[in-house]
Order: sequence, then structure tokens, then C-alpha cells
Amino acid sequence: MRAPTWDRATSGVCDGRMAAGGVAAVPLAARFAALWSSLERVGRDPSTGGYRRFAWTEADRALRDWFAGQAADRGMTCEVDRNGNLWAWDGEAADGAVVTGSHLDSVPDGGAFDGPLGVVSAFLAVDELRDRVDRPRRPVAVVAFADEEGARFGVACAGSRLLTGALDPAAARTLTDRDAVPLAEALRAAGVDPEGLGRDERALARIGAYVELHVEQGRALADLDAPVAVATAIVPHGRWHLAFRGAADHAGTTRLADRQDPMLPFAAAVTSARALAEQAGAVATVGRVQVAPNATNAVPAAVDAWLDARAADDAVLDALVAGVTEAAHAAAHGVQVTCTEESRSPAVRFDAALRDRIRAVLGDVPLLPTAAGHDAGILAAEVPAAMLFVRNPSGVSHSPAETADPEDCVAGIEALAAVLEELACR
Amino acid sequence: MRAPTWDRATSGVCDGRMAAGGVAAVPLAARFAALWSSLERVGRDPSTGGYRRFAWTEADRALRDWFAGQAADRGMTCEVDRNGNLWAWDGEAADGAVVTGSHLDSVPDGGAFDGPLGVVSAFLAVDELRDRVDRPRRPVAVVAFADEEGARFGVACAGSRLLTGALDPAAARTLTDRDAVPLAEALRAAGVDPEGLGRDERALARIGAYVELHVEQGRALADLDAPVAVATAIVPHGRWHLAFRGAADHAGTTRLADRQDPMLPFAAAVTSARALAEQAGAVATVGRVQVAPNATNAVPAAVDAWLDARAADDAVLDALVAGVTEAAHAAAHGVQVTCTEESRSPAVRFDAALRDRIRAVLGDVPLLPTAAGHDAGILAAEVPAAMLFVRNPSGVSHSPAETADPEDCVAGIEALAAVLEELACR
Repeated sequence: MRAPTWDRATSGVCDGRMAAGGVAAVPLAARFAALWSSLERVGRDPSTGGYRRFAWTEADRALRDWFAGQAADRGMTCEVDRNGNLWAWDGEAADGAVVTGSHLDSVPDGGAFDGPLGVVSAFLAVDELRDRVDRPRRPVAVVAFADEEGARFGVACAGSRLLTGALDPAAARTLTDRDAVPLAEALRAAGVDPEGLGRDERALARIGAYVELHVEQGRALADLDAPVAVATAIVPHGRWHLAFRGAADHAGTTRLADRQDPMLPFAAAVTSARALAEQAGAVATVGRVQVAPNATNAVPAAVDAWLDARAADDAVLDALVAGVTEAAHAAAHGVQVTCTEESRSPAVRFDAALRDRIRAVLGDVPLLPTAAGHDAGILAAEVPAAMLFVRNPSGVSHSPAETADPEDCVAGIEALAAVLEELACR
Repeated sequence: MRAPTWDRATSGVCDGRMAAGGVAAVPLAARFAALWSSLERVGRDPSTGGYRRFAWTEADRALRDWFAGQAADRGMTCEVDRNGNLWAWDGEAADGAVVTGSHLDSVPDGGAFDGPLGVVSAFLAVDELRDRVDRPRRPVAVVAFADEEGARFGVACAGSRLLTGALDPAAARTLTDRDAVPLAEALRAAGVDPEGLGRDERALARIGAYVELHVEQGRALADLDAPVAVATAIVPHGRWHLAFRGAADHAGTTRLADRQDPMLPFAAAVTSARALAEQAGAVATVGRVQVAPNATNAVPAAVDAWLDARAADDAVLDALVAGVTEAAHAAAHGVQVTCTEESRSPAVRFDAALRDRIRAVLGDVPLLPTAAGHDAGILAAEVPAAMLFVRNPSGVSHSPAETADPEDCVAGIEALAAVLEELACR
């Protein structure tokens, strides 16, 4: 099925008014509602209500068309960089620009807000800025990073990691999806030359500061009764592959003592991950499992599981993963257990000067750390980076139930516009 | 790929000699080896070495051709009954016959012996009987029951259950495989009229006694240092569907206390199933699991798992399943847990008179209960039924590593021939 493309007619409500009389002629809330609804149907699974916006698919192409359309409607120049990230420039592209944005892709059956809220807010904040300021001192750009969730090729923040060189381009090209399609082939099909992947000095030089607005993915702001927060840090996190290799056997006739059942140490790993995370004030999740041969009346030969763990510091994280592995070994029942680190993101502390400058503009907004990875966390190693979080009343994320109140989204856009004005004009 | 058909050239070694000078001209061990090797390649997966002989597939067709070829080579009349079971008659088909056989299908990546050993042994035991006896008092038949493992349509012993009426034909016709192909369609494609399914009084009347030889699926005979045993009973067993319904959420940012993670009660069910089975002297296995959305960085929304449990009596089995469900509820973490019985086979006690008569022929062979379902267990509700088990040195079954020593297989055929002679001639 061809994914529905973005709704240009709905989006046009906003753009038409802008052309006629500036953004002030239509309240920001109405312009947000119009622009938000233009994305509503893209890549949505009608059966789950969740989004399946995976990198370099038909849904992704529709999202990229939408981005280009938004740039065109505003007279912004749209570019695709060597790593497939999308840029819309307000004025001439130049070094030291103020850049804002996020990503448009989703996890499987993800929510509408994680990513797109930052891109939609970025375009509307640029509209606000234009309405207030004739000629900013620095250029402003909106960015949509490619493949932030890593849902298809397994590496999160692929677009920003390639841009900074944190992901080796040769390794990236050979990443494959579940149908064994290599990233290189997917890129070529989408018109991006895979040989161009890699650290992009020119693109990096252009980023004077990066500010990413994102829906909060927990309930801290709901508890604090505040619509917007500024990020302090991203806690260290990673993914580990737990492989359990036992022996297939008859489920009825094989004595328990004679079995090497990989489901048993796997279950011990799940239980211990939760218990150890609770003890450590960390989080640990086993969300993906594969069983072979996966037959009701056979002891499995193999279980493969993936552990996602995040903790306040690296030592706690290491101890947590070691504890899970130890618990699996303790319940091995003759099964071979291995734990392999698949990815690891060290702690990120966002630029303190930039953060203080933002708080000076926004007033006494809460400061929050986060346990989620973001492109802003990758860029923070190279350029001053900051994040704004918008309240999520339920705290639910990576789910069709993910949401944010429209008033909070408007508060986020207003905060982002104020930050852009500060950074681009002062 | 077209499955390789059976090796008529190899099989012919045996049949040619038979025609020339009776079975005694070639040692039974050589005839077993030749006939066994004629099946070796049918439905074998070259990558795992395991068999994928699923009902009404191309591999199944090759096995059925093989059966018909064996019947023809011996001048036996081959019939397919209304439920797709194969019969080869030594002499005129008539009521009260002595029937022996097993099944030819396999579990996914199953072993060579579970099923086919009983059919190969049946043909060779008929050869032995013919060599010893000119005119048995009762007719003898070899049978291969359809779809014993239920690997494709989910119902074990489908052929014998349909024959006895234990499986409703209307329900059977609508069973579907994982590609949503209904059994009715698969039968039609194989030339069997699905409207003919159902209890078959004529076929049942013809079975005076049924004796099934089967590879042992545990290590009891290895421990007892005996090649052959007689079955006493099949312990009660069943399959239960455990459904865990939680809420998808972000693996990094959702506080542990806010999660409804279905992996946690699932893990508790796995751990408790093993512990409770150990306490009860039963067996319990979780061999099949499905997770949604099955993403590394998302708390799952749902886990579905299947529990296979078998115990010495029905009360112990009920208590075991109740205990597993209770353990899952105790670790629910807000997740909805349901347990649904998908199939249940009550205890089977094989006919005591037939068993005693067999033991009188075979001498003091061990008596064994089994925790595996068999067509003989289904037929036992209708006709005198018995089973012989052949030693399995490793105890491994439902696995490519399943095996039996050729000398033990020959001992099994000799035992079966002696039993046929007793039942058909005395």
C-alpha cells in the first residue's frame, strides 16, 4: 500500500494566511493545529493507530516531501546533506547558524509527537521569529535528522552520528534491515549516494548552536505542573544482545534434568533486569525477543533477546548489565549465555553556557535530565547544543497513546521562538 | 524447491532379494539399513539437518508415495481412508485385523525417528511374519496416520482424532496454517475430499488391535540398559495460551513504577513453570513466544506464550497450570494476564490384556509410561491399543540430534514381528 502523503490542503490554511497578512493574522494555536494535522495520516497503521515511519521507506519519502513543501511555502532553501539529513534555510546558508529541529521517523507503532513535534515547532518558531524580527544577525535553519530511532537498521541517531563521524560510514553502509536490505541500497533507492556518507565538516561549521524541542517521554513536567523544561543531560545508555544457546528437545518426554532450555536463563535475565534497575534507580527493558524453533511442543534451541539499559552514570550502567548477565549465568541450566554490547551512548552534559542563556530568556523553567537518546546528544560532542521538553501528561511514549496538550505545544513553540530570537539576534 | 523423493533404487536392494529368496537371504540389519536410508533425504532441511515433513506439503506427498511404493513392492493393497490416513493390507482387508504403524510427518526441524521408525519397522515386521507364517488367521495392515505432530494446523494426531471422531470435522476443515491456508484447501490440493472427514466406523471395525512402535523420547531405556519397552500409559497433557496485555512505552524515559511491562509476568510464568514442574514430578515447557511490537527500545504492549504441561494425573496437571497462572498474576505489574486451555489430552491407560499378552511374548521387557501424545493413545479409546518403545541413547527427540542404534531398531522390529505373529496367528 502506498502511504498517504501529507495533507497540503490542510497545511495551506496556514500558509495562505501567512502570505496574506503575516502570522499574527491567525492565532498560533490554529496554525499549530493546521500544520499538525497535515502530518496526521502519514505512515499511520490503521489497525494499531501507531506510526510506522521507518527510514528510507515510502512513509519516510512522504515526510521528506512534506518538509520540502514547508520550506518552499516559506521561501526557505531546502537541502539534503551528504548523510541524508534535511535542512531548510531561512536566508543564505552560512557558518555559525542557529539550527533547530528534530526528526520525522518513528519506532514501530510509535506516537505522533516523538520527533515531528520538534520539526513542526521549528517551522512555526521560524514564522514567529520572522514576524518579530526583520533581519536576524545570524542565519536560522530547520533540520530533520535521518533515521533517529534506528527502527529499520538498528542504529539510533544514524543521521547525526554519520554527520559527526560517530558512526563509521563503511559500517553504516553494510547495516541491513530485517529483510536483509543493506542501508546502502535503501539510500540509493531514495536518491542518496551511499559513498557520500561520513563526517561533514561543512555542515558542522554551519551549526553555531543547535536547539531541539521534543515531547517529554516521562511524567516529570506533569508532576511539576510546568509546560516546558530545559534539558541538563542525557544519561548513559546502551543496547546489549543476550544470546542463549541450548538444545531443542521434546517438550513432553525429556526429563527436566536432561534439558538445556534457553527460556530459563532468559526469564532470569528479564526478572533480574527489573530488580537490579529498581535497586540502582536506573531503567532496564527487554522489549525484543526471538525464539527458535518457536514451537509449542519443543524445548527451544535458542533464545535471542535485547536489553536496553540506562543509568545515571557509566559505573551504575556497567554494574547493572553485569548483574543481569550474572543472573542469567546463575540460571543457565547448561545453556550457553553470552552478552554483547551492540551500542553504547556515554553520558551527555549539554552546554552549560547555552543552557543558562536559554533559562535567562525563558525564566525559571525546570531543568530535567533525560534517559532518552537524541540527535542533540550526538551533536553536543561537536557544537553547543540544548533541548526543550514539552509536557507529556501521561508520560507515555513510543506508543500510539503518546500525547501532548495543544496549549503546551503552543507554549513550546513560543519558548523556542524566544530562544531563536535570543540566539539569532543578540 | 521440490523436496527430494524417496530413493527407490536403494529401497529396491531389499525388495529384489526378497523376491529372489525370502527375507532370510539378507540379514534384517541390512534390510533395515536399506529401507531406512530410502527415507533419509525426504523433507530434510540442509541448513539445520532437521526434518520439515509437514502435513499435506510436497515432502508429505513424497512420503506418501514412498508408503505406496513399499506396499506395491510387497503386493499389499494401498488405501487412503476418508481422513487421509494411509493403509497397506497384507491380504484382504477385513474386520478385526492386526494393525501396526505410526506416522511419517515431523515437528519443525524434527528428527528422523519420531514416526518413521514405526512405519519402517511395520513393513519389515510384516516381511518377517510372512517369512515365518504361511497364512495368518487374521489380516495384517500397516498404517501411516496423517498429521500426527500437528506442526502445520496446530492439532496433534489430527488423522486418528478425525478417524475416531475425537476431532470435529467441521472444526478441522477451518483450521489454518501460518499462511492462513485452511486444512480443507490443503486436503483438496492433495486429492482428499474435505467433506469426507469424520468418524469412520468401517475403518474402526477393521482394527482388531493396534500396536505402534515408536522411538523412546526420553532416557528411561538407556538407564535400564534395555532395547525395547512396552507402554503402560500416556500421562495427561495439554497446551495453554498465556496472554499478557500491558502498555507500550519508551524504554528509556518511562519510570519503572509507571510501566505495565508484559515481559515481567511472562518471565515469572516461565520460571514458575519449571519450579512447579520439578516439585510435582511433571514437565512444563514454554517453547513458543510472540512479542509486540518487539522493538529493543520499547516496553512491549503484548506478550503471547504457550505452555506445554504434562503430569502423572489430571489433578497434578491442573494444579501445575493454576500455579503458573498464579505466579504470573503475582508478578503482573498492572499487566492483564489470561490463561486459556487450547487442547487437553486426558490420561490414557493402554489395554491391560493386550499389554500382558505382548509381555508374555517378549519376556520381561520394561513397562514405561510416556508423556508424549501418540495416535495409539487416541485409538485406545476405541480399540485395544499398545505401544513398543525403542531405546533412544541420548533421550533427545523433536530435534535433528534424535537417534537410535541400528541394533536396537532391529531388536524393535523382531519384537514387533513376534507380537504380530502372536496377535495374527494365535
